[in-house]
Amino acid sequence: MMNNQTYYAGIDIGGTKILTVITDAGGTILGSKKKKTRPEGGFDGVMDRVAECFNDALLDAGVEKTALTGVGVGAPSAITADGIAVHAPNLDWHDLPLQAALQERLGLAVYPENDCNVGTLGEFTFGGGKGAETLVGFFMGTGLGGGVIYKGEMVRGKCRLAGEVGHLVVQAGGRKCGCGNHGCVEAYASKTGMGRRFRKEIEDKKRSSSLKAECNGDYANVRSSILAKAYAAGDEVVQETLQEAAEYLGIAVASVINIVGPDIVVLGGGVFEALGKELVKTVRKSAAKNVFPAAIMDSVSLELATLGDDAVALGAVAYAMHETGHSASLE
Amino acid sequence: MMNNQTYYAGIDIGGTKILTVITDAGGTILGSKKKKTRPEGGFDGVMDRVAECFNDALLDAGVEKTALTGVGVGAPSAITADGIAVHAPNLDWHDLPLQAALQERLGLAVYPENDCNVGTLGEFTFGGGKGAETLVGFFMGTGLGGGVIYKGEMVRGKCRLAGEVGHLVVQAGGRKCGCGNHGCVEAYASKTGMGRRFRKEIEDKKRSSSLKAECNGDYANVRSSILAKAYAAGDEVVQETLQEAAEYLGIAVASVINIVGPDIVVLGGGVFEALGKELVKTVRKSAAKNVFPAAIMDSVSLELATLGDDAVALGAVAYAMHETGHSASLE
Repeated sequence: MMNNQTYYAGIDIGGTKILTVITDAGGTILGSKKKKTRPEGGFDGVMDRVAECFNDALLDAGVEKTALTGVGVGAPSAITADGIAVHAPNLDWHDLPLQAALQERLGLAVYPENDCNVGTLGEFTFGGGKGAETLVGFFMGTGLGGGVIYKGEMVRGKCRLAGEVGHLVVQAGGRKCGCGNHGCVEAYASKTGMGRRFRKEIEDKKRSSSLKAECNGDYANVRSSILAKAYAAGDEVVQETLQEAAEYLGIAVASVINIVGPDIVVLGGGVFEALGKELVKTVRKSAAKNVFPAAIMDSVSLELATLGDDAVALGAVAYAMHETGHSASLE
Repeated sequence: MMNNQTYYAGIDIGGTKILTVITDAGGTILGSKKKKTRPEGGFDGVMDRVAECFNDALLDAGVEKTALTGVGVGAPSAITADGIAVHAPNLDWHDLPLQAALQERLGLAVYPENDCNVGTLGEFTFGGGKGAETLVGFFMGTGLGGGVIYKGEMVRGKCRLAGEVGHLVVQAGGRKCGCGNHGCVEAYASKTGMGRRFRKEIEDKKRSSSLKAECNGDYANVRSSILAKAYAAGDEVVQETLQEAAEYLGIAVASVINIVGPDIVVLGGGVFEALGKELVKTVRKSAAKNVFPAAIMDSVSLELATLGDDAVALGAVAYAMHETGHSASLE
């Protein structure tokens, strides 16, 4: 049963938008607010906008700040145990006191954590991974993020830097990745990675594709809805590239299955929201081919993420519940 | 302090030999016995030989069977929660009741588990990984085995099949592996994998190497001591192949670091016993190049295994301690 006297806030700080949700103890969203991040305003400017977004979400939910049990935050950075955001390339943050800055502005205890870890926790607690004991999440958008929940607990390592499943090397010496290395799964299974192949096929090999007109040369930032339309229309370059992405993703999925033996693997992010049904079979087939022993695949279910754009904010709620000693009391 | 009133037995059932050790509560070996496995005698024949080996080890240690708190067993097979050995290719076992057969013969509770998992637990408890919280072990011999200990607990997944770090795919579509797949790290970083390259370099490309005379065409089964001699003598084929193996192993090490963030990675097995000093730097360099984020490497130490041929038997002791509700009371 829901406990109406306990509330949580979850804040997703992204490169372009901030989203705050206010929930009850079961994770039901009672109110929310979205705001542009405007990272050009600097760290303090963003922190001020987070505080405004948080206050507006409380108003939207009709919940008093004093009724909150915890505030969780997901941010696109590694976060130390002291609440320092080590490096957020999208926000141009380096070693900034995220936890302290927000606690000062909100007047409450704040629990910040990496957005991919928190998004994975969101799907584990409230989404496509509900009921799992051990779960791995992959989120395919501009990059390939993800995280690992082992027996109910977020895996971060003592260093708090573990869980970067997008940078597993699946093709030694292969395609260049945004991280500087070669052959990471992200170099194939992300919009940035697929963008390299789109450019090669369309610009270098002069193959015909609707993307040429649609994306104005910016092949790494094609919207997922445009990919889905081209895919459905039989655009061969788009179909091949997405299927290749799904195959490579399946190899990384197999690696994580080999290592931690999850019961559920959740696939999410913009690309899977738009094209999940077209891709999930290929991911499963590739994972099945690459796991060892083969029988391990019988114990793993591949699920599409269900929380969409709310995954990180709801995951931040789940994280706040965990850090304040509560677990999600699901109905 | 040692507790002299508590004893354990650890049994390592390998493809060629059975080793039983009897230890005190601190893992000090008080007596042991080695016997040939003779798998051609079938499952019952091997079980009888295990029982003889066990009884001889008790005599060697001067310990009564009734003084044993637990008996752990490592076997080259996946083992179900019901104690069934699912598949041991080296012994030609399929779905055999390992636990029941041994309990009947020994008259004691027996705890069987996969030998690589148990070997990793051995190094974690008594060897090169002592003091770790989260540890990954890689053992490079004929194949590439290993396992993962996460916060003190063996990682097996609900299916009990997880932890197969040797079959992480690091080169999609690459060299054929003994498992049937392509590009597993074992296809490069094991004697079997290196054997393929030795053959290619020496037989196909006619490059000069002392292995040609030493191994009589059986390039996949060169003894580690012969590899070490050739390496030290400047044999280029051997040096290149071993360094390549270490580089590929480093990629798999990076993958496991990315996923679970261990504090220690232990490198063992025959090849590392013979050539650890020559290889560990390359493994570390390759791992550092392939982890993400790079800073994670600062929190990981690479250690050579220290238990040698006793790793599985001592790991079986540690497993018995764990399963009987004791932990190793190290001095």
